[in-house]
Amino acid sequence: MLETTFEALSEDEKELLSSAEGALGLAYNPYNSQTKVSAALRTASGEIIVGASFANDSSPSSVCAERSAILTANSLGHRELRMMAIIGTKMGGMVNGPITPCGVCRQVMQESVNISGYDLEVICSNSDKTKIIKTSLRELLPFPYGGKWK
Amino acid sequence: MLETTFEALSEDEKELLSSAEGALGLAYNPYNSQTKVSAALRTASGEIIVGASFANDSSPSSVCAERSAILTANSLGHRELRMMAIIGTKMGGMVNGPITPCGVCRQVMQESVNISGYDLEVICSNSDKTKIIKTSLRELLPFPYGGKWK
Amino acid sequence: MLETTFEALSEDEKELLSSAEGALGLAYNPYNSQTKVSAALRTASGEIIVGASFANDSSPSSVCAERSAILTANSLGHRELRMMAIIGTKMGGMVNGPITPCGVCRQVMQESVNISGYDLEVICSNSDKTKIIKTSLRELLPFPYGGKWK
Amino acid sequence: MLETTFEALSEDEKELLSSAEGALGLAYNPYNSQTKVSAALRTASGEIIVGASFANDSSPSSVCAERSAILTANSLGHRELRMMAIIGTKMGGMVNGPITPCGVCRQVMQESVNISGYDLEVICSNSDKTKIIKTSLRELLPFPYGGKWK
Repeated sequence: MLETTFEALSEDEKELLSSAEGALGLAYNPYNSQTKVSAALRTASGEIIVGASFANDSSPSSVCAERSAILTANSLGHRELRMMAIIGTKMGGMVNGPITPCGVCRQVMQESVNISGYDLEVICSNSDKTKIIKTSLRELLPFPYGGKWK
Repeated sequence: MLETTFEALSEDEKELLSSAEGALGLAYNPYNSQTKVSAALRTASGEIIVGASFANDSSPSSVCAERSAILTANSLGHRELRMMAIIGTKMGGMVNGPITPCGVCRQVMQESVNISGYDLEVICSNSDKTKIIKTSLRELLPFPYGGKWK
Repeated sequence: MLETTFEALSEDEKELLSSAEGALGLAYNPYNSQTKVSAALRTASGEIIVGASFANDSSPSSVCAERSAILTANSLGHRELRMMAIIGTKMGGMVNGPITPCGVCRQVMQESVNISGYDLEVICSNSDKTKIIKTSLRELLPFPYGGKWK
Repeated sequence: MLETTFEALSEDEKELLSSAEGALGLAYNPYNSQTKVSAALRTASGEIIVGASFANDSSPSSVCAERSAILTANSLGHRELRMMAIIGTKMGGMVNGPITPCGVCRQVMQESVNISGYDLEVICSNSDKTKIIKTSLRELLPFPYGGKWK
């Protein structure tokens, strides 16, 4: 895990995080905290695919931005993923710290890693891109379920 | 709920079910039953968006085709949905009866109905389109959680 | 589906709904809407098992009372279920209409019905037991996924 | 993370893992891989609560042993958890490596850690207790969603 700044990101990473930010308007949450998160994926072939959180009146059926992006990528024919950027807001305001993926999303990201054989770089940002961390799925989901014992 | 045949469907419905069928190749399931399902959505503006089941080594993190299609539609800017068609295969072979959405997908479909204010027509097919039912979310998820008591 | 009153319930049903109400204190939700739901199950052997909603800081990982009750019953050795009662509150106040199970819970309840071979009676109540409906899983989850086509 | 042996566990840990093993008969999975997992929790007050995996005909609605144990504990009035042990089998046979929690379970375990303020020790075992690792939620779910930025 590396704490970093927007300026210190590569052009590729900057473009991905900006794409995630640009997709915030796709996030849907008329409920409660109004937390809205968006994510952007870089595929192996270089394309960018975005996804956004999609809340549900019954909270357990809400779906996060990270999963939405992976499923959208699959629907559009992309399973080989290399990088993900995540950003979000809350109650129409700022989220102060970097948004990291929930456990469910990490498990779905693990499947993408199983498919590609590559670790997935993950860039997590707060609302105004002043707090950014660079990590990867291997770091976010150590000793994943499955794998070795199958 | 209406049992029907492919021939008896409208041109619109035929096109949607054929689109779902055409998306079966996007379904991912190297595990166990190898059940693969795909779905196609007709948006209010007439476009077709597809989604496919995306299995996970840890089964609770698998995602169905119906949810994948709704999330893909949202990622592409479409929240107003009118019709969904569903089809699938199993172990590389036939599924004998029409595939209906699981409870989780019905709950996510309910949110789309909450958004649009329109009931969602649902066409469920078996593998070779010889057994088809036409139904709708209102019929598939009666007395939904939320709604009245909020 | 039958709209009914607490007085019109059988002694058995009254006891179950009162047990659900008595379990509301087990519900955990420090977040947002503070929706709290509890459920009670009647097993085939006549015992009562309760469960309560267990919220999560990441909403998709929240778990409903109905599933919690079924899992608790299984942990205690009971898989043969006959009746479920559901009740809840919101923001520490009243829920005006009967609380019905979400789609995810209906899917888990379907598995219990698959196991027992019996339909599951479901009693849904608002906060002060002035609005009650009696229904069953067959009615709540028509044409369930699986079943016929497997 | 520490690779260890059953003999090297404390008496407390041995008792917990044996309790998990004793609960394997509660696991329900008539489907596909027939993976069955059970878990045991040590509460702050010293009690042991077990849970078991509960499969679903629709795989995304399957529930893991770890979540089942936490929900059962909550239903029985225990939210302060200190230790969890996990064990499992597959197709009626051996699982060769230690079973670690999936991402969904880690997210639910995180809520327990949020509640108690204590990290949760986790003992993961293969089927015959010849391969055991000792870890904790902090290690299994680094940089959890929520926390800092709320």
